[in-house]
Amino acid sequence: MPADRIYNFSSGPSMIPFTVLEKAAAEMVNYRGSGMSVMEMSHRSKVYQDIFDETKADLKRQLQIPDTHEILFMQGGATLQFSAVPMNLIGKTGAADYAVTGNFSDSAMKEAKKYGEARAACSSGDKNHTYIPAQEELSISSDASYFYYCANNTIYGTEWKYVPDTGGVPLVCDMSSDIMTMPVDVSKYGVIFAGVQKNMAPAGMAVVIIDKTLAGNEHPLTPKLLSYQVMIDSDSMLNTPPCYTIYMLGLMLKWLDKQGGIERIARTKAEKAKVLYDVLDDSRFFAGCAEADSRSDMNVTFRTPNDELDGKFAKEAAEAGFENLKGHRIAGGLRASIYNAMPVEGIMKLAAFMRDFEMKNR
Amino acid sequence: MPADRIYNFSSGPSMIPFTVLEKAAAEMVNYRGSGMSVMEMSHRSKVYQDIFDETKADLKRQLQIPDTHEILFMQGGATLQFSAVPMNLIGKTGAADYAVTGNFSDSAMKEAKKYGEARAACSSGDKNHTYIPAQEELSISSDASYFYYCANNTIYGTEWKYVPDTGGVPLVCDMSSDIMTMPVDVSKYGVIFAGVQKNMAPAGMAVVIIDKTLAGNEHPLTPKLLSYQVMIDSDSMLNTPPCYTIYMLGLMLKWLDKQGGIERIARTKAEKAKVLYDVLDDSRFFAGCAEADSRSDMNVTFRTPNDELDGKFAKEAAEAGFENLKGHRIAGGLRASIYNAMPVEGIMKLAAFMRDFEMKNR
Repeated sequence: MPADRIYNFSSGPSMIPFTVLEKAAAEMVNYRGSGMSVMEMSHRSKVYQDIFDETKADLKRQLQIPDTHEILFMQGGATLQFSAVPMNLIGKTGAADYAVTGNFSDSAMKEAKKYGEARAACSSGDKNHTYIPAQEELSISSDASYFYYCANNTIYGTEWKYVPDTGGVPLVCDMSSDIMTMPVDVSKYGVIFAGVQKNMAPAGMAVVIIDKTLAGNEHPLTPKLLSYQVMIDSDSMLNTPPCYTIYMLGLMLKWLDKQGGIERIARTKAEKAKVLYDVLDDSRFFAGCAEADSRSDMNVTFRTPNDELDGKFAKEAAEAGFENLKGHRIAGGLRASIYNAMPVEGIMKLAAFMRDFEMKNR
Repeated sequence: MPADRIYNFSSGPSMIPFTVLEKAAAEMVNYRGSGMSVMEMSHRSKVYQDIFDETKADLKRQLQIPDTHEILFMQGGATLQFSAVPMNLIGKTGAADYAVTGNFSDSAMKEAKKYGEARAACSSGDKNHTYIPAQEELSISSDASYFYYCANNTIYGTEWKYVPDTGGVPLVCDMSSDIMTMPVDVSKYGVIFAGVQKNMAPAGMAVVIIDKTLAGNEHPLTPKLLSYQVMIDSDSMLNTPPCYTIYMLGLMLKWLDKQGGIERIARTKAEKAKVLYDVLDDSRFFAGCAEADSRSDMNVTFRTPNDELDGKFAKEAAEAGFENLKGHRIAGGLRASIYNAMPVEGIMKLAAFMRDFEMKNR
């Protein structure tokens, strides 16, 4: 990474690999001899359709998505899926169960209440969302149209370490902040969705992976563009898709292959997180916010002994080239978001900076 | 324009000025010393907020948008606005009037029927959408929540030459294909919306300009992200906006200023269209599809004497560096889409190519 680039620990949008950005820059004014930028291509042209198809195929291969499931590229990020999921799915029984483990799953449940009976299957609110409830703490009713959870909670720094057993109720997962960081058994899921701006592409799209048998029963007032069935039937091209964002996703997937694929990425992610958690565990100055068995490999949340030192840490870190370490406003404290594109050396340097800061301020 | 770039007459996505693409490429890996790509920036950071604010301010100045109106950046393109408009507005009286002058206004009316009584205020379907009805042909009821029209019909090559007088009923306009090509008296409109992929930015966003007094009465099942009031209150940042698309819009607006502003652009657009219409009017080989007084300055639709020659024209034109001249599949024939970024020399060269093709094939 060139010296004038910074280590950006933002929770999203977040770092994109330097080689991916270089490639995008090199292809910007003339994509591979087409005489056009990807931004300028008709989405109905062969040159663009090839980009679209290859991106979908790479995603299908890397996540081993079975033929029972379809990949959709939808606008509106994860937030619009908070509405689309119940509009498409809750009508089957009129009810759905939500695991409330943070801000985003809570927002999703509130949105679902517009369309049916959305119930909390569990809540970690009793301990400020510092943990993920165990399987036996989930109350999932057999009359639920689906069970919903958010795999990784960016604000609180917790991550589900198991796939919930729902006893046959379709499983819906917001995987916005840890998709493409580990292998997933997609066959277990009814719907996986993810805003792309953390591990996949620039902001402005959600990837939806849906068991095709679940589509086709949307609420009659569902906007046409939010109907999973319409999107399946049109291969995500009812209207002009976010073409350039899909192209960028394609470049990211090629980069992921070059890193050795998703199994290798999963090992690296665990190693990267361990470096920072080791600093916290070895310290009597820093303290992790999440309970040890629920810690996120994506968002490491921590605190110094007081708010003033938190502020000093974030400020001095930024001056040293480590940006966006301030915690989310509703959680406070500090947070290092370390998605796939954060280089290992960024982690090592931050760990060293933390130890040094502790020495000087304890 | 470098010799290896082509003239792209696509109806959208479409050409972006070469200097804009060059700027985007140059700033891709490190935006103005920030150490980051715009794609990587937190949407809550100061460096990104500055881009966002400046883009909004430039748009407000160039379109002279009064303080009564708010600018929103929304995902889902114009198609999602086909749903958002009635979800937000039709409830006031339960009814709305639609001018059906082509495929997109017809789709918008069909979508609105989900949410209320959407009625055709006129239809140009009797003559295959080759004309724009006159003011006296519009039946606008005083009980309509709004009157809706599509300012320019890309498929049929027609464009409204007047702003409809609605007698006080709020005016809603899909300006996707001619926004930023001429001055607009925004105060006359309740809502203007536009998919950005023709004259504003890469695909994946709609700009919505709304009279703030119309917001706040959305249907209770409106997805939160589609509520105009929520988007006004959050300044388009309820969730992560399509940050890079907004940045590209900003670059386009700077380019527009360099062209001399929107008054100058409006003169150029009329001159560009006239060059091609003069070819059609001087020819006994080519024929324009739209009636003369309804012709679009954006999409010049025409035919040769038969389908076979249409195909030959499109093919030979592509070989000569004029891409995407085939008409839309539902209209057939030929179409040259000439948005702001199409250089005058592209028009002149196409006109020469047309005259030459006529000589050889008449």
